[in-house]
Amino acid sequence: MTTYQAPLADIRFILEHLAGLPEIARLPGCEDASPDLVAAIHDQAGKFAAGVLAPLNPLGDRQGCQLMDGRVIAPEGWHDAYQQFTAAGWPGLSLPLEHGGQGMPRIVSAPVAEMWAAANMAFAMLPQLNVAEAEVLMRAASDELKTTYLAKLVSGEWAGTMNLTEPQAGSDLSAIRARAQPQDDGSYRLFGQKIFISYGDHELTENIVHLVLARLPDAPPGVKGISLFLVPKFLVNDDGSLGEKNDVRAIAIEHKLGIRGSPTCTMSYGDGGGATGYLVGAENRGLEVMFVMMNEARFGVGLQGIALGEVAYQKSLAYARERIQGRDPVSGRNGVAIIEHPDIRRMLLAMRARVMAPRMLAYVAAGWFDIARHHPEPTVRDLHRRYIDLLMPVVKAWSTELGNEVCDLAIQIHGGMGFVEETGIAQHRRDIRISTIYEGTTGIQANDLIVRKIQKEGGDTLQLLIAEMRSVAGQLRANAELAALGDSLADDLDTLEGTLGWLLAAARERQAEVLAGAVPFLHLLGTVCGSWQMGRAALVASTTLQGSSDYLRGIVLLARFYFAHMAPQAAALARIVSAGGATVVGSGEAIFG
Amino acid sequence: MTTYQAPLADIRFILEHLAGLPEIARLPGCEDASPDLVAAIHDQAGKFAAGVLAPLNPLGDRQGCQLMDGRVIAPEGWHDAYQQFTAAGWPGLSLPLEHGGQGMPRIVSAPVAEMWAAANMAFAMLPQLNVAEAEVLMRAASDELKTTYLAKLVSGEWAGTMNLTEPQAGSDLSAIRARAQPQDDGSYRLFGQKIFISYGDHELTENIVHLVLARLPDAPPGVKGISLFLVPKFLVNDDGSLGEKNDVRAIAIEHKLGIRGSPTCTMSYGDGGGATGYLVGAENRGLEVMFVMMNEARFGVGLQGIALGEVAYQKSLAYARERIQGRDPVSGRNGVAIIEHPDIRRMLLAMRARVMAPRMLAYVAAGWFDIARHHPEPTVRDLHRRYIDLLMPVVKAWSTELGNEVCDLAIQIHGGMGFVEETGIAQHRRDIRISTIYEGTTGIQANDLIVRKIQKEGGDTLQLLIAEMRSVAGQLRANAELAALGDSLADDLDTLEGTLGWLLAAARERQAEVLAGAVPFLHLLGTVCGSWQMGRAALVASTTLQGSSDYLRGIVLLARFYFAHMAPQAAALARIVSAGGATVVGSGEAIFG
Repeated sequence: MTTYQAPLADIRFILEHLAGLPEIARLPGCEDASPDLVAAIHDQAGKFAAGVLAPLNPLGDRQGCQLMDGRVIAPEGWHDAYQQFTAAGWPGLSLPLEHGGQGMPRIVSAPVAEMWAAANMAFAMLPQLNVAEAEVLMRAASDELKTTYLAKLVSGEWAGTMNLTEPQAGSDLSAIRARAQPQDDGSYRLFGQKIFISYGDHELTENIVHLVLARLPDAPPGVKGISLFLVPKFLVNDDGSLGEKNDVRAIAIEHKLGIRGSPTCTMSYGDGGGATGYLVGAENRGLEVMFVMMNEARFGVGLQGIALGEVAYQKSLAYARERIQGRDPVSGRNGVAIIEHPDIRRMLLAMRARVMAPRMLAYVAAGWFDIARHHPEPTVRDLHRRYIDLLMPVVKAWSTELGNEVCDLAIQIHGGMGFVEETGIAQHRRDIRISTIYEGTTGIQANDLIVRKIQKEGGDTLQLLIAEMRSVAGQLRANAELAALGDSLADDLDTLEGTLGWLLAAARERQAEVLAGAVPFLHLLGTVCGSWQMGRAALVASTTLQGSSDYLRGIVLLARFYFAHMAPQAAALARIVSAGGATVVGSGEAIFG
Repeated sequence: MTTYQAPLADIRFILEHLAGLPEIARLPGCEDASPDLVAAIHDQAGKFAAGVLAPLNPLGDRQGCQLMDGRVIAPEGWHDAYQQFTAAGWPGLSLPLEHGGQGMPRIVSAPVAEMWAAANMAFAMLPQLNVAEAEVLMRAASDELKTTYLAKLVSGEWAGTMNLTEPQAGSDLSAIRARAQPQDDGSYRLFGQKIFISYGDHELTENIVHLVLARLPDAPPGVKGISLFLVPKFLVNDDGSLGEKNDVRAIAIEHKLGIRGSPTCTMSYGDGGGATGYLVGAENRGLEVMFVMMNEARFGVGLQGIALGEVAYQKSLAYARERIQGRDPVSGRNGVAIIEHPDIRRMLLAMRARVMAPRMLAYVAAGWFDIARHHPEPTVRDLHRRYIDLLMPVVKAWSTELGNEVCDLAIQIHGGMGFVEETGIAQHRRDIRISTIYEGTTGIQANDLIVRKIQKEGGDTLQLLIAEMRSVAGQLRANAELAALGDSLADDLDTLEGTLGWLLAAARERQAEVLAGAVPFLHLLGTVCGSWQMGRAALVASTTLQGSSDYLRGIVLLARFYFAHMAPQAAALARIVSAGGATVVGSGEAIFG
């Protein structure tokens, strides 16, 4: 059985030639990201992912987590693996040096996060929560809270959680009912139940630092009355040692389709008189702060789609090369490996294209994060922040939708062996299924893209992006070998721009129709962004580097595959967006049968 | 929690107005299929499916089957349900009166088979095997075998199995190694192992009648050396009573992603000196006979895609009407049911369209079976046999691919509640996953479609079908209200015909490229057939019946949705078929990274 190998050649190619690692390593604060160090980090991470995390993955799925006598028991071996993980300093890879992190830019940590998820998605969710919570505390917490909690989260000694969802408040957080009672000492007592809390309880760390959304007394209704609180599992004494257990506990864990190695808990706060918590940020502004954490998490979830696609692809490729079945359809030669069958080969390439295109976009976006944070020019920072805001819904939703398709194709290539659990392929499919749901469903991402990221600013940032993509189309057209790709990209950009015009024009009178096309539009934008990045990759591989290796020649061929198999969706999606909404809204109840 | 309700209004509309039930009921041998009796059968079947089978479905999933001390134990309640099922005469519904069946035409039994699968797919596989095996025995078995086995299979007292797959022989049956040794008394002794045998062993019936593919001594290699044998679990005495246990047993059962209520067995034949078997059909012609059974089974699997889509749709619709979350995006009204969100509504309609379009095609094909069997005119019989042969790969593969999409959308609509196992939505997704794999993968179906059903006869039957579809396009164009649908269908038929021309022209020199586009072509043909049937439905509902009910007005609106959301795929798929193959074949190994 093939195990996961970190895709180091792909990572290096994209970082160096598409995502701008050489330029980012020259930005102030990113100087440590030298080519050698980055390569060493990725090499070490790849070894840890393949050697330590991947072997625990099927075991976590089989054993799951158990709630016994109020304790949540992790799968065998996970505690040990987590100790090694923190000892190696991985939790703080992207976090600032001043809080004990490694200070690496996002462009370096993103591929590492992808590796953790590929090797063991259920495990990888734990350190991802630390990074997100540390970002929240750095931005919004009081110095006192920072002093007490930040270093422990950066080191991974303590774990983090996000407590948002309640039974009546899923995608709609305005319905949150958990409440917080101010105390004389400036702390709060929290009461309420939260559901679907990833790593809500466990004993992998000595303490867990919950971030909890709740309402203060007399808070305004809706989203403007929600505050954010830090609630530790164990209270922390002034000297930093652990004090008594707080009034919070896991009262149930879910039986899930996938990511079974991670405990998804129902958390109860305040059954014994109130859980002690501390306000993070301003009163009633909790959602704004939490959205910082959620945007971090969304990027991470997008990487999960790529990651599970990668491991599913690797296993399918290996299986297709080994499994002997049937005849070559052209030569008639018998007993060939199934990769010789054109449809199997097509599926493998469909998988690789669905991993590589969103990976290119995600790593490029990771570079934008670094530029937006570290570039000396405010206008440059601002532009890249706008690009991130625009495309984060695409990185999250498009990558995960494609990741689901890739894992599904992996089952198809394995045939009956993919449907039995023993091969582990089905687990990847089950695990990845949550990725288009949590941290905002695909529908939520698509609405965010259209309403807040496009319509609200009249499409300005998308126009800037289209102009950048047009320049790539022009470069492709100027290259005899790649001109057809340039024509295709130029056509699809016209289509995209036309659809954008429709989205803006229809906003006032026909907004429900626009929103009925939100998800197809997100796929349209993702598909065109994929053409853009594949086009860039082909230009670099064929022109700049003159196809000087098998790898580079393979990149050009993959770009051709993408343009022939995925790009044609753009025109179909544009038709669906602009003409489909009217058949969705206002068609009454009888249409449902 | 909503349970399944048989979609009687949809069934009646399609049978009466699209699939030709009134005409079929006038064919010799089909006279019993009066409107009243058919309605009563469907009503009763719907009650049995909803009342008896559906409640056992989650239970079968949770408990699975156990192999204990050589016995395969079914989930609780299944034995009792099966007794009721046979007592009501359901196993023989479509089988001839002379063998104890009910003699109903396929157009009547197909919706019933859909209901069983919708209520409990794992259970429904058992009676489906009886029907398929009875068809094989009727066509190919000796009178002696028919006398001994047929009535028991028709009544459901005994169960059937299909033993094809071996570890090295999955999609490629030419690699079969199981062997049969002739005995002096005319019987055979069988030796070998078979894997992935659905209902290979159980105690739901007193006997199990295995059909087994194996090789005779000195048989030619490959597919021309495979014979078919009947191997009973218990030998049958001359008086019909059960004799001693045969030398066949289940040695393992699979742990599967879905259909866990059905035992999928590894069967061992001849460990104790040889399992007694009897030749069915001629020596070395077993595969031909078995293909009869497989084609029956393929139609049934296509219905599974529709069935699980239906139940997933029903539950999603109910959930979307109940679940309160968020604001109306246009009015701003708070606390609306999620069906008010345009993207949720779009997903629900995407589900309904993906159930109804393949259902229309499948029921129409069911009617073709009856016409091909019972019509007095040989030319009419022949034409409909050709249509069946052409479109059976589409009914099997397109219906199941769409069924997978529908079940996946059901999870998406349920959000986090779809990802936890407690709601039962995830089970439908897991169950349906096998449907694009067993009885020939989607890739196998697509190759069959292109090579044997189209290229082999120069596309003649498809041309006849295109002409029939063109006439519907013409009728739509002649109708002011539906003219746009007619234009769209006419365009897509041009596209389809152009692609057909390419498939035929490229057959000699570029066949590997053609086959790399086989699955996209199957989707193209399915999509256009869906437009054809949706167009017919809209014509009937709007013109013939003058939109005289909410239901009929809903059908017209659903057709509009289909043309706006699914038909646009046709052009994209055609581009992929004709230009995509070249980027798949001959691109070497470097493209895999």
